[in-house]
Amino acid sequence: MTYRTESDTMGQIQVENSRYWGAQTQRSIQNFPIGVDRFKFPRAIIRSLGILKKGAALANKELGELPADVADLIVQAADEVISGKLDEHFPLVVFQTGSGTQSNMNSNEVISNRAIEIAGGELGSKKPVHPNDHVNRGQSSNDTFPTAMHIAVVLELNEKLFPKVEKLRNTLAQKAEQFSGIVKVGRTHLQDATPITLGQEIGGWVAQLDYCISEVKHALTGLYDLAIGGTAVGTGLNAHPNFGDLAASYFAKETGYPFRSAENKFAALSAHDALVQTSAALRTLAGALMKMANDVRWLASGPRNGIGEISIPENEPGSSIMPGKVNPTQSEAMTMVCVQVFGNDAAVAFAGSQGNFQLNVFKPVMVHNVLESIQLIGDACVAFNDNCAEGIEPNLAKIEHNLSINLMQVTALNRHIGYDKAAAIAKKAHKEGTTMKEAALALGYVTEEEFEKWVIPMDMTHPSA
Amino acid sequence: MTYRTESDTMGQIQVENSRYWGAQTQRSIQNFPIGVDRFKFPRAIIRSLGILKKGAALANKELGELPADVADLIVQAADEVISGKLDEHFPLVVFQTGSGTQSNMNSNEVISNRAIEIAGGELGSKKPVHPNDHVNRGQSSNDTFPTAMHIAVVLELNEKLFPKVEKLRNTLAQKAEQFSGIVKVGRTHLQDATPITLGQEIGGWVAQLDYCISEVKHALTGLYDLAIGGTAVGTGLNAHPNFGDLAASYFAKETGYPFRSAENKFAALSAHDALVQTSAALRTLAGALMKMANDVRWLASGPRNGIGEISIPENEPGSSIMPGKVNPTQSEAMTMVCVQVFGNDAAVAFAGSQGNFQLNVFKPVMVHNVLESIQLIGDACVAFNDNCAEGIEPNLAKIEHNLSINLMQVTALNRHIGYDKAAAIAKKAHKEGTTMKEAALALGYVTEEEFEKWVIPMDMTHPSA
Amino acid sequence: MTYRTESDTMGQIQVENSRYWGAQTQRSIQNFPIGVDRFKFPRAIIRSLGILKKGAALANKELGELPADVADLIVQAADEVISGKLDEHFPLVVFQTGSGTQSNMNSNEVISNRAIEIAGGELGSKKPVHPNDHVNRGQSSNDTFPTAMHIAVVLELNEKLFPKVEKLRNTLAQKAEQFSGIVKVGRTHLQDATPITLGQEIGGWVAQLDYCISEVKHALTGLYDLAIGGTAVGTGLNAHPNFGDLAASYFAKETGYPFRSAENKFAALSAHDALVQTSAALRTLAGALMKMANDVRWLASGPRNGIGEISIPENEPGSSIMPGKVNPTQSEAMTMVCVQVFGNDAAVAFAGSQGNFQLNVFKPVMVHNVLESIQLIGDACVAFNDNCAEGIEPNLAKIEHNLSINLMQVTALNRHIGYDKAAAIAKKAHKEGTTMKEAALALGYVTEEEFEKWVIPMDMTHPSA
Amino acid sequence: MTYRTESDTMGQIQVENSRYWGAQTQRSIQNFPIGVDRFKFPRAIIRSLGILKKGAALANKELGELPADVADLIVQAADEVISGKLDEHFPLVVFQTGSGTQSNMNSNEVISNRAIEIAGGELGSKKPVHPNDHVNRGQSSNDTFPTAMHIAVVLELNEKLFPKVEKLRNTLAQKAEQFSGIVKVGRTHLQDATPITLGQEIGGWVAQLDYCISEVKHALTGLYDLAIGGTAVGTGLNAHPNFGDLAASYFAKETGYPFRSAENKFAALSAHDALVQTSAALRTLAGALMKMANDVRWLASGPRNGIGEISIPENEPGSSIMPGKVNPTQSEAMTMVCVQVFGNDAAVAFAGSQGNFQLNVFKPVMVHNVLESIQLIGDACVAFNDNCAEGIEPNLAKIEHNLSINLMQVTALNRHIGYDKAAAIAKKAHKEGTTMKEAALALGYVTEEEFEKWVIPMDMTHPSA
Repeated sequence: MTYRTESDTMGQIQVENSRYWGAQTQRSIQNFPIGVDRFKFPRAIIRSLGILKKGAALANKELGELPADVADLIVQAADEVISGKLDEHFPLVVFQTGSGTQSNMNSNEVISNRAIEIAGGELGSKKPVHPNDHVNRGQSSNDTFPTAMHIAVVLELNEKLFPKVEKLRNTLAQKAEQFSGIVKVGRTHLQDATPITLGQEIGGWVAQLDYCISEVKHALTGLYDLAIGGTAVGTGLNAHPNFGDLAASYFAKETGYPFRSAENKFAALSAHDALVQTSAALRTLAGALMKMANDVRWLASGPRNGIGEISIPENEPGSSIMPGKVNPTQSEAMTMVCVQVFGNDAAVAFAGSQGNFQLNVFKPVMVHNVLESIQLIGDACVAFNDNCAEGIEPNLAKIEHNLSINLMQVTALNRHIGYDKAAAIAKKAHKEGTTMKEAALALGYVTEEEFEKWVIPMDMTHPSA
Repeated sequence: MTYRTESDTMGQIQVENSRYWGAQTQRSIQNFPIGVDRFKFPRAIIRSLGILKKGAALANKELGELPADVADLIVQAADEVISGKLDEHFPLVVFQTGSGTQSNMNSNEVISNRAIEIAGGELGSKKPVHPNDHVNRGQSSNDTFPTAMHIAVVLELNEKLFPKVEKLRNTLAQKAEQFSGIVKVGRTHLQDATPITLGQEIGGWVAQLDYCISEVKHALTGLYDLAIGGTAVGTGLNAHPNFGDLAASYFAKETGYPFRSAENKFAALSAHDALVQTSAALRTLAGALMKMANDVRWLASGPRNGIGEISIPENEPGSSIMPGKVNPTQSEAMTMVCVQVFGNDAAVAFAGSQGNFQLNVFKPVMVHNVLESIQLIGDACVAFNDNCAEGIEPNLAKIEHNLSINLMQVTALNRHIGYDKAAAIAKKAHKEGTTMKEAALALGYVTEEEFEKWVIPMDMTHPSA
Repeated sequence: MTYRTESDTMGQIQVENSRYWGAQTQRSIQNFPIGVDRFKFPRAIIRSLGILKKGAALANKELGELPADVADLIVQAADEVISGKLDEHFPLVVFQTGSGTQSNMNSNEVISNRAIEIAGGELGSKKPVHPNDHVNRGQSSNDTFPTAMHIAVVLELNEKLFPKVEKLRNTLAQKAEQFSGIVKVGRTHLQDATPITLGQEIGGWVAQLDYCISEVKHALTGLYDLAIGGTAVGTGLNAHPNFGDLAASYFAKETGYPFRSAENKFAALSAHDALVQTSAALRTLAGALMKMANDVRWLASGPRNGIGEISIPENEPGSSIMPGKVNPTQSEAMTMVCVQVFGNDAAVAFAGSQGNFQLNVFKPVMVHNVLESIQLIGDACVAFNDNCAEGIEPNLAKIEHNLSINLMQVTALNRHIGYDKAAAIAKKAHKEGTTMKEAALALGYVTEEEFEKWVIPMDMTHPSA
Repeated sequence: MTYRTESDTMGQIQVENSRYWGAQTQRSIQNFPIGVDRFKFPRAIIRSLGILKKGAALANKELGELPADVADLIVQAADEVISGKLDEHFPLVVFQTGSGTQSNMNSNEVISNRAIEIAGGELGSKKPVHPNDHVNRGQSSNDTFPTAMHIAVVLELNEKLFPKVEKLRNTLAQKAEQFSGIVKVGRTHLQDATPITLGQEIGGWVAQLDYCISEVKHALTGLYDLAIGGTAVGTGLNAHPNFGDLAASYFAKETGYPFRSAENKFAALSAHDALVQTSAALRTLAGALMKMANDVRWLASGPRNGIGEISIPENEPGSSIMPGKVNPTQSEAMTMVCVQVFGNDAAVAFAGSQGNFQLNVFKPVMVHNVLESIQLIGDACVAFNDNCAEGIEPNLAKIEHNLSINLMQVTALNRHIGYDKAAAIAKKAHKEGTTMKEAALALGYVTEEEFEKWVIPMDMTHPSA
């Protein structure tokens, strides 16, 4: 490996020639060897830094703050950052300076050097494109990094979360529709209750997902407000007065989302409440997914000594000797994702409360956890959808058997023979272990014909409601 | 004390004569001696059960499900529950049946017996007003308790949270306006930074509070959706098909809030995601309050060896010997409230994820924590407002001194004498411990007149932006 | 009501004559109207402040720092605080100064005034017993309040937690022993698995409780280290050099627990890691109780369409019409307590991380949550024990039926007829819905006699191991 | 790429020829595409699976359960797993089956195929070394994976946590010793307080670390208890009765740590309380590190308008124009790690509470978070030590200046001139902004000589105590 000399205000440092990064990135590598194997900033952050630097250059060009040729070189290099072509030049980890300064500088340095290269200049020369004076023009780490955080989270929510969760949601909605005619035992307190349809049961999960997705989407509102234009402390010192608004409009154009410069930049630098709210909405979604995944595995429990009212696909060997023992592994992966999301959210909310004065210096760890939660929920929804939800089938025999021995349908007789006789039927059936019908006939309170006519579980589910 | 005999389906039990409650309440007292001194359900829940039973009776009367005279008796007794007159007849604690069944029955029993008393009947006779057949008509604990939870939280948010937080918010907004002309040192990474105004600093807190309040208000949307009409499992069995919608309209009339029967009752019984979202928004608000309270105590730190840029009221003796040592006790109470709200929220979200099938049986602990967080935030905001925020005053001498020795204003010279000379001034001042102006004049890069003209901290704060 | 004038360094203030407290307590009432109905410090804190002030007086007397007669008066009044006689004179809430200063002063003032009264003096005169100079001699709120916190938690753990949890543990251990001969289906992944005994199943819960109790007991080690002797910043300024050790020895004598003055007082004032560890151990215990309570309710689920292998006592009406529907209400109360303990612990750990310099000012909220968790776990264990655990009974018919249809016992045939034939039996039984024995005989791989001899579920549970 | 056919009880599947894994691993790759880029199980788990399979083979060989040649082949392949040579053959992620079944099978398959290769056999033939019958002999995923979890955590704690945290602890202890003669202002409630030495201040951090490290070490006790020998449900079915104990002794021999087979295997499979306790102790440690890192950055705040009593190394450019502005970036990275550890712990404790019957199926996510916390704390301690703690230096001029203007030393005059005159001096100094000495002399209460003799801050720190 060969090296070149890069420099910053602290002096010179050697950087491997194949890398575009400069002195500050190199120092960060050396100063923060923390979780290096797992905590490098992901694609979403790199891409958003590219979008940010491109939009900033275009805004500065339009405002006359940057020469057109310099701006154009920055745009060209930034486009490569956006495309993913330069990902290997972003080596920094989450646990660095709490303002994300070094990742901002990493993007400045890489874009500067790549632009220099395009222009035929010498890497590290800072000419004709200077990382600070040009790429970071009108910006500070304190407003750029939180801007990139919001852009990254908005993009990932739209690309990695909503379509994946909705895929699962739609599968479940289709199952709910498909199973709307299957009457089964309801359960409250884990105890047998009056009938519902399997469609209603699954529909409850769908309604939860719908609410949770809408709440995550609501969180976007706060995420569209960007710190850009606030520079170091929120006053916008050293940025053109129109820079924030104009840059935000370029981000909107690039991404298709209605980004805008936040009304109050002081809050935008010193707090990240919109990110905390996003994390919280992801946690609520995880809670809903946990309930659904738990219901699925309990309904599929068995094969003989559980509830067994649905079957789920067998994706891997359960027991080598016993057919029918299907471990609910997708539910297990999903619920593990859910507890992880709960943990990630705890970190985000804690970090969000720890700002001081004009800056919150827990930015990287906050966005890291939100992005991880997005990825995990999205991935788990697809895996669950493809390998479990799509294959959910009712075990009709078991459902019907369970329903037939359930005693709660006795309530349907109340209006015909009165509460006392109905209760007596239930008591007898419970004591003797018979079905309700057997007890009813034995007591002589109804005829078989009457029983069949009056005790219609489907009618108890109000399916038309 | 004298006793009467009350009964339920399990048999008879003795209840003290002075109490309106019946057998199921009495059993709950005996079965759940858990945290009795601190965990009795508060006024808000009792009141909401009253609102619920009143609205249910009116709906049932309108639908012909209850005789008018019975309904009217229920309404009369329920009004007493609403007013607080019967609070001592609600002895049950949070840690009971997870559906809140016994608190629902407590309200049925108290209203029944009080209505019987009004009608001149015999307590415990269940005539002419039966706790189940009449007061609980068309209802189940499974839909009534979550309905009462939502009503209680909506009322408390509107009565105990919003006005109290907004009181503090308005005081701070007024301070921000009042101090908009006071320029001071900004701080990022706890390090001196370029100037801001004290008004901008406080305005950042106001912007956070505005966002957080709006997010809590957004959570109301989900809370207006009520479980009422779902009865035991969500199907609405045993309730008139129009009961849910009509009852909700009576709750809306009684309270002034747009309650409605939830579209999907299965989700409304088996999950409480809207409550989880409410709790999360309260947590975000607590995070914002924590940042504000921390800033206040750091800005007021001293009296000599801290930052000391603001003074706060001295409400109690700090040091018996030393004047000027003002412990930031309101910040301490506030930040303790904030960590409590974080803890409460953790309990709510955990509980929210633990539903099974048609019921989540963590209802009481969920609403308990949300109501506690509402109360604590509200109370703490008022105490902080009255005993601290209203008395915040700038320490002008300290602010000006700090600003005068701050070196970050050197950036204002860049455009006049160039970056290199400006940096040289800063370096000299830092090394020799002088002010920037002293160093600038000593180096001869500017005249005193020029310095005064060019280095105007207020201009660096962009106050018009 | 009549009032007297009390005074402190801030001046005079009116206090109701029937109360022993003085000016600082009165100011706190007025300055901190936060959660007044629920957050008054409990008996345990008041008692510990009494123990502290008594021991401090005895130590100061022995060291010649207090006149014997003054010390004796303090001891006499402190004994009344210890006994609970003066509880109504401790009106302050958790959300006050973060060092607990005002509760410390409350105890100083009450003991001073009560001692004055005993001596025939005038309340509020501070003669002959001064709240600061005498009762608080050699102390600061900064070392007394954390000392009282540790004493309170140690006492409550020993009196309210260990005996109550152990009561439940012993009931379960007795059930495990009693049911050691009952073979039943094991379950992993919620799927049928090879047999275990009911005794083994319950014994797993006992083993968890044993570990968790031992971990809470281990936490005592850190709690025995007291801040006493550190005074305001940890240096012990204004206390006799032997005061801390001697006072601690008096606390040990009074309580029977091996309290000692902490080796490093700086850490003892500025951090409460031992309390965080205690809270964490309580959380682990709550996790174990949650698993147990969940298992109980699932094993008792039914009556017809659940697992139904055990029955639990019916303590209150479940369904009015259906016998046998026993809602697992004690499990519900217990699991709600568990999530509350998780929430409380989150608050404690957060608060524990927020110390600055020589003081952590989240003391009251930390001890509040630990004491609440102790109380709730203790109470819930007793309720669960008395109203559920003691009444757990096996449903032998269901257990035997479940076991008979379970297919996992087929593994017992492996060594006799080989894996392939065993698997064929399982496959046939699963497909045709028969028992294993029916399938085995139908295939002709074993005789009935062989089957009975070879497939002995109890042998598969290794009960002697 | 070329492929071979691998098979399991579900049938055949294609595996890339260059990989040793078999059918079940391949299925897991396809079924669980969740967080693939970040959540592959790390070296520590792979290594521990190697140690486990080696020890199991040796135990089975000794017990006559495996032919010596087969066992020896397994040992040889397992040694390669231990060494890290086969890491690329372990592709599975955390979010899989909740028992870790597929990672256990991954190790079985890789060791089987590698052993087959060594023996000159055909990959995928399962001859002469079968993944289930030989490598997994006497084992189940349900007992092996939790065994590997404990081994991994014990190894990582000893290799990655203790030495790294102790390195920082020792640096701080050396600084505390070195700075024991430097008297400075103490601070409580962020307010000036009586003097301490810088050594005492740092010593408080050391005492916290000592306690926290000892608590993590205490957690090892529970981790030495292994599930091995419990097989599928805890009964040990299909394992030799001595297998668990003997295998554990081999693990102890291989690692040097006193592993043993747990007394109660039912608890060892269905709960992971020792892991929860470990996570909690790591969280307490993180809380202590957070306090320390916060103190460091506040003490180093400035350069002009903060506390500025210590200086920390400048590792990267802070402000391009202003010398002396040193952002406390190591504190920022450290505190971000701390909030992450808090989040990880929340996930672990939640997961730990969710076991059902004979199995907790959150195993992978639990061990993942504990291992991540270990790594992050360890890495952050080294980075903080090398790049910050070692370079902490007192700013003597600032310390002395702060001390000289501090008014709390006035308390030293009490015993010489009485409380009233001392307070008068403080009051005058505070009002006029002078030093205490100036005020004292101006009031004429002491001579300069007396003042110098009586007011000796070092004496107020009790350095000999």
